[in-house]
Amino acid sequence: MDDKGDIETSDVGGVLERNGSSFYEDKELVGAREPLLRKATTNNTSQIAIVGANLCPIESLDYEIVENDLFKQDWRSRKKTQIFQYITLKWTLALLIGLATGLVGFFNNLAVENIAGFKLLLTSNFMLEQRFFEAFVVFAGCNLILAAGAALLCAYVAPAAAGSGIPEVKAYLNGVDAPSILAPSTLFVKIFGSIGGVSAGFVLGKEGPMVHTGSCIAFLLGQGGSRKYRLTCTWLRYFKNDRDRRDLITCGAAAGVAAAFRAPVGGVLFALEEVASWYSALLWRTFFTTAVVAVVLRALIGFCRGGKCGLFGEGGLIMFDLSSSVATYSAPDLIAVIVLGVLGGLLGSLYNFFLDKILRSYSVINEKGAPFKIILTITISLLTSCCAYGLPWLAKCTPCPANIQEECPTIGRSGNFKNFQCSPGHYNDLASLFLNTNDDAIRNLFSKGTYDEFYISTLFVFFGAVYFLGLVTYGIAVPSGLFIPVILAGATYGRIVGTLLGPISDLDTGLFALLGAASFLGGTMRMTVSVCVILLELTNDLLMLPLVMLVLLISKTVADSFNKGVYDQIVKMKGLPFMEAHAEPYMRNLVAGDVVSGPLITFSGVEKVGNIVHALRLTGHNAFPVVNEPPFSDAPELCGLVLRSHLLVLLKAKRFTRERVATGVIEVLRRFDAFDFAKAGSGKGVKLENLDIQEEEMDMYVDLHPITNTSPYTVVETMSLAKAAVLFRELGLRHLCVVPKTPGRPPVAGILTRHDFMPEHILGLFPRVKSND
Amino acid sequence: MDDKGDIETSDVGGVLERNGSSFYEDKELVGAREPLLRKATTNNTSQIAIVGANLCPIESLDYEIVENDLFKQDWRSRKKTQIFQYITLKWTLALLIGLATGLVGFFNNLAVENIAGFKLLLTSNFMLEQRFFEAFVVFAGCNLILAAGAALLCAYVAPAAAGSGIPEVKAYLNGVDAPSILAPSTLFVKIFGSIGGVSAGFVLGKEGPMVHTGSCIAFLLGQGGSRKYRLTCTWLRYFKNDRDRRDLITCGAAAGVAAAFRAPVGGVLFALEEVASWYSALLWRTFFTTAVVAVVLRALIGFCRGGKCGLFGEGGLIMFDLSSSVATYSAPDLIAVIVLGVLGGLLGSLYNFFLDKILRSYSVINEKGAPFKIILTITISLLTSCCAYGLPWLAKCTPCPANIQEECPTIGRSGNFKNFQCSPGHYNDLASLFLNTNDDAIRNLFSKGTYDEFYISTLFVFFGAVYFLGLVTYGIAVPSGLFIPVILAGATYGRIVGTLLGPISDLDTGLFALLGAASFLGGTMRMTVSVCVILLELTNDLLMLPLVMLVLLISKTVADSFNKGVYDQIVKMKGLPFMEAHAEPYMRNLVAGDVVSGPLITFSGVEKVGNIVHALRLTGHNAFPVVNEPPFSDAPELCGLVLRSHLLVLLKAKRFTRERVATGVIEVLRRFDAFDFAKAGSGKGVKLENLDIQEEEMDMYVDLHPITNTSPYTVVETMSLAKAAVLFRELGLRHLCVVPKTPGRPPVAGILTRHDFMPEHILGLFPRVKSND
Repeated sequence: MDDKGDIETSDVGGVLERNGSSFYEDKELVGAREPLLRKATTNNTSQIAIVGANLCPIESLDYEIVENDLFKQDWRSRKKTQIFQYITLKWTLALLIGLATGLVGFFNNLAVENIAGFKLLLTSNFMLEQRFFEAFVVFAGCNLILAAGAALLCAYVAPAAAGSGIPEVKAYLNGVDAPSILAPSTLFVKIFGSIGGVSAGFVLGKEGPMVHTGSCIAFLLGQGGSRKYRLTCTWLRYFKNDRDRRDLITCGAAAGVAAAFRAPVGGVLFALEEVASWYSALLWRTFFTTAVVAVVLRALIGFCRGGKCGLFGEGGLIMFDLSSSVATYSAPDLIAVIVLGVLGGLLGSLYNFFLDKILRSYSVINEKGAPFKIILTITISLLTSCCAYGLPWLAKCTPCPANIQEECPTIGRSGNFKNFQCSPGHYNDLASLFLNTNDDAIRNLFSKGTYDEFYISTLFVFFGAVYFLGLVTYGIAVPSGLFIPVILAGATYGRIVGTLLGPISDLDTGLFALLGAASFLGGTMRMTVSVCVILLELTNDLLMLPLVMLVLLISKTVADSFNKGVYDQIVKMKGLPFMEAHAEPYMRNLVAGDVVSGPLITFSGVEKVGNIVHALRLTGHNAFPVVNEPPFSDAPELCGLVLRSHLLVLLKAKRFTRERVATGVIEVLRRFDAFDFAKAGSGKGVKLENLDIQEEEMDMYVDLHPITNTSPYTVVETMSLAKAAVLFRELGLRHLCVVPKTPGRPPVAGILTRHDFMPEHILGLFPRVKSND
Repeated sequence: MDDKGDIETSDVGGVLERNGSSFYEDKELVGAREPLLRKATTNNTSQIAIVGANLCPIESLDYEIVENDLFKQDWRSRKKTQIFQYITLKWTLALLIGLATGLVGFFNNLAVENIAGFKLLLTSNFMLEQRFFEAFVVFAGCNLILAAGAALLCAYVAPAAAGSGIPEVKAYLNGVDAPSILAPSTLFVKIFGSIGGVSAGFVLGKEGPMVHTGSCIAFLLGQGGSRKYRLTCTWLRYFKNDRDRRDLITCGAAAGVAAAFRAPVGGVLFALEEVASWYSALLWRTFFTTAVVAVVLRALIGFCRGGKCGLFGEGGLIMFDLSSSVATYSAPDLIAVIVLGVLGGLLGSLYNFFLDKILRSYSVINEKGAPFKIILTITISLLTSCCAYGLPWLAKCTPCPANIQEECPTIGRSGNFKNFQCSPGHYNDLASLFLNTNDDAIRNLFSKGTYDEFYISTLFVFFGAVYFLGLVTYGIAVPSGLFIPVILAGATYGRIVGTLLGPISDLDTGLFALLGAASFLGGTMRMTVSVCVILLELTNDLLMLPLVMLVLLISKTVADSFNKGVYDQIVKMKGLPFMEAHAEPYMRNLVAGDVVSGPLITFSGVEKVGNIVHALRLTGHNAFPVVNEPPFSDAPELCGLVLRSHLLVLLKAKRFTRERVATGVIEVLRRFDAFDFAKAGSGKGVKLENLDIQEEEMDMYVDLHPITNTSPYTVVETMSLAKAAVLFRELGLRHLCVVPKTPGRPPVAGILTRHDFMPEHILGLFPRVKSND
């Protein structure tokens, strides 16, 4: 692809020869359509998007089954052994994804626990010696170094690794590709940047990055090996298409959730609910992958039991074992739950609102270049360190409770009671939250039978700090998950509500913290089933299920009336052309023919090489209709659609003829294997500048029939845009041919692509259509 | 619809005027297709299916968005208030489904526990008095009466209520409609028949019937009220279409699982994994519905606590609380788990094999009429009673264990230790399994810390009896779920394996029983994620998750290599035309044009009334292509598709014209509301015999344009059948128009329906196609 070709400028057009207003002569057929003012005729929606913190050209993925003569031959010749190879490999890859993601997840936890543990140990040792300033310098210094390291990696090696990664994975599975989303460098930075970011004490999580990591691993495995490193294998060629890659990446995303939360069933559900736009028979395979992750994690935790892994304790992988047996709850409890749900919805939608504003301001800073990104990260790191070290001074010391099993104060390891500046036998409750890893802070908040452990003022201070720091942290150039900040803030206000309602409610404050976390998750992410299962798997407390469901339902409903879920919002802000599951209502008032934009470039069945090269050079279109004309047919007929990548492969082989004759599929088969046309890994396909076509070859002919997809999906131009959008989305198309209603016109009226369904484009063409709604 | 119309004879055809072999002239276009011998040209696949135990005519459902001028007008005129009404009602109905299903589930359990409890109490009292023969007579007599009552209801009131109901619901959600599947009479019989069947001590469950019940409730609520009982409401008209009904029924099925197992998340997953062929944004709404069920059940159980509901104890609604904290398992445990998985796969596929054979023999008996059905049921009931009462005599009495909290022997209520014929202080372990409700037997098998409770001989006898009785019981004319027999048998052999491996494994035998149940469920039903979640919700033991996942994966893989899942098998045996998610490989060698069968009947845009009436009378087709011809267009063009039901409504209104003129949509709007064309509830639409067309009206004309769906989905005749099948299935179509490749031919070549994709049909036409694979 040439420099224009990288950017999918529009893929579309109107037939060149066609009278521009021909659609409007058929208006009667559409019924009593109100006249709509049409503004422009070209598609101006952005072909680039923000991936991570940088701008990136984007393309669509091809999920359609291409039926050309060549591939058909291939199908027919495929033997039982090859089918066996394919199935074996499919499951082997699922296994490998599970294993690799499990290992990475474990390694990630191990590293974080050890680095952060060492840092906190050092700080606490200085504090014990009353050297408070040195303690702060060590604490803030460690944080700064770790943060700067992560930011350096992110800014210079792989800007796409910044942020959560879930929006990008979601967009990829919806059919949007940007070269850097799942690249190996992104994987590398995601793993090490996430370790740095989490260890640096930021209010961010490793869960979103784990999902992205799992997807990157899956993408890497599905690349069909690497010729450069001689890691290629004939079996892997079966995965050289977007459909199989999509399936692998869905498994990878599920494996990521399973590894991050130790929640295998939650992982499957997350993949279905949040990221997989196409739900197919994948359920079973994602289930397998997450099962592998669960086994790997359990085995490794078993290995580490007994102090073999440094400071890595029981708690590295989240599992907040509440092990309650509360089976009853009274009417006041239900009211408390409803209050929590409403509060979660309000705070969640407010969070999304602020996050959007902050991300927009940050993108101005990030656009100025890598040094600015690093400065921003360092600033936030210092702010976080100041909060974490400074705020606990506000809290007063509390004498340790008498009859508890736990050590109090806990010195030199994670625990509920941090002594901070207090004298022996006392603990600082705010320090117990701040000077801990985020996982441990959550465990403290969720802990049961600890009604008096935290002062209400402590909880208010901590909530304010976490809510604020969570907002300003997302968007810096560090891999940063949103789950942990949201759970932290949610658990804190849940505990506040629990403490306030303590006298009238039978529920434990730890349970209130859990319900608070659920409500805030519902309010920001708007996921229901998967959050529910993840929380259950986290806390191992199924008896809370009805309350968790109730709180999620309420908070999601409340928040939905204000704005969209946080991931949808980020996808939109990044400019990724995401196809929604449902068509917008105003699309019912438009027909498919209204939005296709021209001019459309078509080829003949046997086309002059010069014309093809010219068209490829001139446009960035990724598909061209092939129209058979006399003498190859009686009247012009739509032969099918030919893909840019296939044209490039065909031209590179230079099997041209002097005469305008159809050479047929046999000739092509003599030269090519079907796998020559398989979709290459990212950045590996034949490019326009690789072609070396001589001047005299430009006047020769090439037969396009063997590589033409003879059965592209078509819709009639009078189909409503809403119905066409459903077709497009359900089948995961890249190109949808629009054919004219009446015979006698050129056989194809245009091509619809993902960009033509974007609200910006449609509302740009028909500004009044929305008000007609 | 006329008597033929009820049966969707084919919906399809080839253009009347067309040369029968015209497709074969285009063969070159398809590539080097091997010549295939085509046998017949009509679709002979069955248009009737076994629903319950009776034959029933079947139809397809219309999930397509019909875009005719009339409905478009309606869309445009729909105001914000109407959209609000629709959304409110959608959620209200979800709430009502949840409430009603929760109530029915509770009522069902209450009734079963009380009836079966009373029966067992009576028997045990006679046994205590050493009056063993009277005890048997009472036991067998009660069983017989209950069984006969259930069979009477099933045989005479609603034969569709027999069996599990899950295959029928699955087929409905795939798009197959049979009038009796979800009728109110089926609902009635399903509830009371299930209570009778379960109380009668059959080896069957209430879970499948609960799913069916939930679906029936949802269907009833989505009927748009009843004019007869003045229960109609203008708001309900929004649900008079198959799409909204399908969504409701998915919620109903999920609610059924939630109510049966008290597993709300499992319900959502079950609906997705097993029954919902179209996964849309329903996840969120099914989640809401199952949450309502969870709340209702919990509230009612709270109410019943303390003996307010007769013999209804804690255990009525399944919840086998294992409350373990086993966190480690060793290598021998893993080997045991693998053994269990393989065993489950083998036994499961064998179960499916035998079940298929037995159902085929039973259908011969059931076809002879209602009395035979009742005799069969009574026979099985006597057999079950003899096994349950007779086999425990083989077991020897065991002294009660010393230090247990439970009463031993338990007299007059459910419990682990039944004394049967034994002297006080002793119990009969086989009776503890047989003379209990199935739920209690499962609880006994799952119970922990009871390694010595059951002799291995006891378990072998019980396993043999349950495996055999489970097989012969399904298929009798009683609502009968498969979950409980499968869990019972699985738990038994799980416990056998646990007992045998006891010396070398650290796992409790109760956990082995759980894993055995999981493996057998995986081996028969082949569901993974939902079974996993249901088992977790049943036992409240998340720490077992990795083992349960492992065992499910192994057993499903093993069993899949032998045959299909039990529900798929039953769907196939019943003759329901189920569209699989994936196309068969041989469909790639055929094109869409190959399987359409003729003759096709088309209408003109303005058609003579006589022609329409004739066509409706002659065929059972549910859609007819409308072709505009001169003078309405320059050349013949496909105007769209008109539905039989819409034609009948239009004809009934008798707005005919003497001249052949297009009256347009305004004229139709003057007479009709769009809701007049909405799909009526089952059996309520206008029928052909309701029309009263005079002789002179037969020569008049009617304008079909306003009711013609102008944008039906079309495929080109050279598209491979596999690709067309994907389109058909993904979009949930009823009719798919096949258009010719080359211009100049009649504008529509045929219509594909669900029946044309059935393997029987395709392999009937092209017997050699499969061997070419």
